[in-house]
Amino acid sequence: MAATKPLKIVLFLGTVRENRLGLRVAKFMQNYLVKTGHDVDFMDAQELDLPLLKKPLHFYRDQSEAPPLLVDLGQRVKTADGYVMVSGEYNHSIPPALSNLLDYFPGSSFSYKPSAIVCYSPGQYGGMRAAIQLRALLGEIGCLSVSNIFGIPQANKSLDEEGNPQNDHMESGAKRLITQLDWHAHAMRNHRESVGIPK
Amino acid sequence: MAATKPLKIVLFLGTVRENRLGLRVAKFMQNYLVKTGHDVDFMDAQELDLPLLKKPLHFYRDQSEAPPLLVDLGQRVKTADGYVMVSGEYNHSIPPALSNLLDYFPGSSFSYKPSAIVCYSPGQYGGMRAAIQLRALLGEIGCLSVSNIFGIPQANKSLDEEGNPQNDHMESGAKRLITQLDWHAHAMRNHRESVGIPK
Amino acid sequence: MAATKPLKIVLFLGTVRENRLGLRVAKFMQNYLVKTGHDVDFMDAQELDLPLLKKPLHFYRDQSEAPPLLVDLGQRVKTADGYVMVSGEYNHSIPPALSNLLDYFPGSSFSYKPSAIVCYSPGQYGGMRAAIQLRALLGEIGCLSVSNIFGIPQANKSLDEEGNPQNDHMESGAKRLITQLDWHAHAMRNHRESVGIPK
Amino acid sequence: MAATKPLKIVLFLGTVRENRLGLRVAKFMQNYLVKTGHDVDFMDAQELDLPLLKKPLHFYRDQSEAPPLLVDLGQRVKTADGYVMVSGEYNHSIPPALSNLLDYFPGSSFSYKPSAIVCYSPGQYGGMRAAIQLRALLGEIGCLSVSNIFGIPQANKSLDEEGNPQNDHMESGAKRLITQLDWHAHAMRNHRESVGIPK
Repeated sequence: MAATKPLKIVLFLGTVRENRLGLRVAKFMQNYLVKTGHDVDFMDAQELDLPLLKKPLHFYRDQSEAPPLLVDLGQRVKTADGYVMVSGEYNHSIPPALSNLLDYFPGSSFSYKPSAIVCYSPGQYGGMRAAIQLRALLGEIGCLSVSNIFGIPQANKSLDEEGNPQNDHMESGAKRLITQLDWHAHAMRNHRESVGIPK
Repeated sequence: MAATKPLKIVLFLGTVRENRLGLRVAKFMQNYLVKTGHDVDFMDAQELDLPLLKKPLHFYRDQSEAPPLLVDLGQRVKTADGYVMVSGEYNHSIPPALSNLLDYFPGSSFSYKPSAIVCYSPGQYGGMRAAIQLRALLGEIGCLSVSNIFGIPQANKSLDEEGNPQNDHMESGAKRLITQLDWHAHAMRNHRESVGIPK
Repeated sequence: MAATKPLKIVLFLGTVRENRLGLRVAKFMQNYLVKTGHDVDFMDAQELDLPLLKKPLHFYRDQSEAPPLLVDLGQRVKTADGYVMVSGEYNHSIPPALSNLLDYFPGSSFSYKPSAIVCYSPGQYGGMRAAIQLRALLGEIGCLSVSNIFGIPQANKSLDEEGNPQNDHMESGAKRLITQLDWHAHAMRNHRESVGIPK
Repeated sequence: MAATKPLKIVLFLGTVRENRLGLRVAKFMQNYLVKTGHDVDFMDAQELDLPLLKKPLHFYRDQSEAPPLLVDLGQRVKTADGYVMVSGEYNHSIPPALSNLLDYFPGSSFSYKPSAIVCYSPGQYGGMRAAIQLRALLGEIGCLSVSNIFGIPQANKSLDEEGNPQNDHMESGAKRLITQLDWHAHAMRNHRESVGIPK
C-alpha cells in the first residue's frame, strides 16, 4: 500500500467561544493527522466567521451568486475523503457553531465517506452526550461516523495550549480513532473510484 | 382559579433561514397562547439577530459590561413561568439558531419551570428527531419538557403565512400540549412561591 | 413542612445480568432514600423475572385476566409520587431489562410525576449515553426527568457490594439529585391534590 | 460485477409482542432482499425466544459452555456482510426485544460492516425516534448505519399480513435503503478481503 495517495481529511472545529478549549484539541488532531500521513484541511468556525445560516450553499440555484468563500469551502468539503469533527458540548448538545457550519453544505458533499468524532469537555464526561447527537447529524448528511468516539475529559489538563498531549491516553486514543477512519476512508474511496456512487 | 395571575410564557422561535416555515408556527402558537389567557413574550432569533455565541450572559462577571439587549433578554427569561420552543429540524438535529439563542442564558434562569416543544417540518416526520435532541437540551438547562411533543408535519400546508390553521389537528394539538404546560407551570409556580427553590 | 406525608418513590433497577454492578447502586440509592425520609418501593427486574414483553398491562381489556403480579406492580407504580431509575448502559443504550420493565405499564400511571436518573458504568463515562436515551423514554411515559443526572463512573470502585459509598462524591451526588426530585414531587403532588390532572 | 458472490445479510426482527406489526415489515424486507439477489438470514426475536440477557456470548470464557443456539447465532452474525434492523418504537425508544438480541453478541462480530434501519409504527412518525437511538447502538457495536432510514408510518395500512406492499412508497423506500447498504457492504467486504481489519 506504500504508494497510496494520501487521504484528504477535512478537520472541523466547531466553536467560536472565548477561551475555547477546542482549539487545543483541534491542534492536537491536526498534528496527529499530519504526522500519520494525511492531507489535512483545517476548517475553524472562528476563522471562517460564517453567520447563523440564512441560506445553505445548495439553495443558490445559480452557484455564481453564492458567496465565493462558501463556494470554495463547499469544493473542499466535496473533494475530501473523510472528516474529523472536533466537538465540545453545550447543554448536552451539539455546539451551534458546529452544526451551523455543517448545515451550509449539501449532504451529497459528505456522502459515501466516513467521519470521526472527537469530543471534549472540561468536566468528566468528555462531551459524550453531544457526540451522540452528532452521530445522528453525521448519519443524516451521509458521512457515517466510525464506531469509536474519542472522548477527552478534562481537556484543559490533557492538552496544553499548543495541543501537546499531557498524558499517554491522547496518542493511543487518536490512534484508535484514526485507524478506524483510515480503514473506512480507504474502503469507500476505493469503491467510489471503482464503481462510482449510487444514482 | 378565576383570579389566578396569567402565566408568563416566553415563546422561542429558533430559525433565521430565508423562507423559514417556523414563523407561521410561532404565529399560530402565539395566537393560541394569547387566546387562552397567557402573557406571551415572543423571542424571535431572526429579530434578535444575536451572533454565534462568544460569551454567554452569565460569563460576564460584571453584568453592567454585558450587552444591554442580552441583559434585558436574560431578565425576561428569568421571570417567565414557562417556555414554548418552536423548533424546525436541520439534519435530524436542533437548528443552530435555537440552541445558540438558548445557550446565551444560564440554566438557573430556566430551572424549576416547564417547557413545551413544538416541532415542524415540510416533510412527514414533523421534526421529531430534532425534538428529541431538544428534550435533552431542555432537561439540562432545567426547564423540563412536558410529555407531549406537538409535531407538525407538512407545516407549509397545515398553516398559512399568518399562522392560521388549515386543518383541525392544529387546535387540538396545541390544546393538548398547552394543557400539559399550564398544569406543570402552575404546579411549579405555586411551589416556588410556597417554598422557593433548592439552595 | 414537618407533618408532610412521606413521598412514595418506586426505585427501578433494570438489569438481570450476572455480576451486575447495578445492585450496589440500587442499594446505595435505597439507603439514601430511606435515610432521607422517603417511602421506598424497590422493583428489581431480576427478582420480578418478567419475560420480554408480549402484552402490556393496559392491553388486557379485562384486568382480571392480567397476571396478578403485573396488576399488583401496576398499582404500586400508579400510586407512587415519583420514580428513581437505576440504569446501566449497554452499547450506548438503555439496558433492555429496564425498558422492558417500564414498557409493561401505561403512561397514565407515570404521568404528572417526576423521575430521577442514576446511571453508572465500570468505565469513565458513567452510563451517560444511556441516560440521555432514558430521558426520552421517561418524557414519553409522562414522568419528567429532573435536570440533574447522577452519573457514577467506575461504579465498582465507588460503591462496595452492599452499596456503601467509597468516596465523598456519592452522598453529594445523591443529595443533589434527590433534592430536585423531592422538590418536583411535592410540587406535582400538591397540584394533583389541589386540581387533579388534565382530562 | 455479474459474478460477485451474493451479500450475506442478517435480517433482525426485534419484537415479540402479540399482534406485532413488525412481522409484516420483516417479510416485506425479506422478500425484497431475496428478490434483489441477497443471501438472507432471518433472525426473529420471537422464534429465537432468548430470555433477557444474563450473559452475552463473549462472556463465556470457554465457548463450549455457551448455549449451542447462541454459538450458532453468533457464527451467523459474524460471517454476515451486513445487517438490516426491523425496529418498532416503544415509548420513543428501541424495543427491548431488539436491543436484547443484539446485546448477546460481541461488537467484533458486527464491526467493519454496514447496517440499515427499517423503522415502523401504526402512527404517523414511523418509529423515527427509536431509529435514532438505534443508530447510536449500531455505531457502538461497529456496524455503521447507512445514511437513509426507511420509516414506515401506518405500517398496518402500508403492508398486508404477508408483507405485500399496499402503496408505491414501499418498493421505492426499500430500494433507496438497500442500494446504500449494498454499496457500503461491497466497499467494506472488498476492503476486508484486501487488507483485513485493524488489529
